[in-house]
Amino acid sequence: MAERTEENIVFIGGKPFMNYVTGVVMQFTTKGAKEVTIKARGKFIARAVDVAEVATKRFLKEQGIEVKDIKINSEEFENKEGKKVNVSTIDIILVKK
Amino acid sequence: MAERTEENIVFIGGKPFMNYVTGVVMQFTTKGAKEVTIKARGKFIARAVDVAEVATKRFLKEQGIEVKDIKINSEEFENKEGKKVNVSTIDIILVKK
Repeated sequence: MAERTEENIVFIGGKPFMNYVTGVVMQFTTKGAKEVTIKARGKFIARAVDVAEVATKRFLKEQGIEVKDIKINSEEFENKEGKKVNVSTIDIILVKK
Repeated sequence: MAERTEENIVFIGGKPFMNYVTGVVMQFTTKGAKEVTIKARGKFIARAVDVAEVATKRFLKEQGIEVKDIKINSEEFENKEGKKVNVSTIDIILVKK
């Protein structure tokens, strides 16, 4: 199952790709969500876009799920050497029409 | 210099990161563009977000440049083995307020 800290949010990480797609699809189908947010940071951003594309175009095509909004931002964190580093983030908000 | 096929479009690839940031910044400053689109495919999508974040937040902060819209999509292409593969794409549209 995909990682989630809150309802209706799917965080993209290094688990098998289809875990995340299934996580998004199930939010809409089994759990009846009206809105699901896919979140990722750094290198996982490209993967978040892949998950959104596969979920909406291959699995949820008949359900009327579309991209409502996409937000990008930066977060500052300290790396192992104690140096401040910026990492980009993305939120892809999917909505049931 | 960043790769460009059209005016006001910066395609993100494997060149040094700052080439792309400079490309975006110069479009707004030297060339007086009102709108610049950052485009990327596949693994370069994460980099496109980094370029947009660094350009707008570090270099163009005083210029009133902001993200106007972000679009994601998929393109189908044939790989070396002749198999059809989907690749995700992103367009990040920056605009001068």
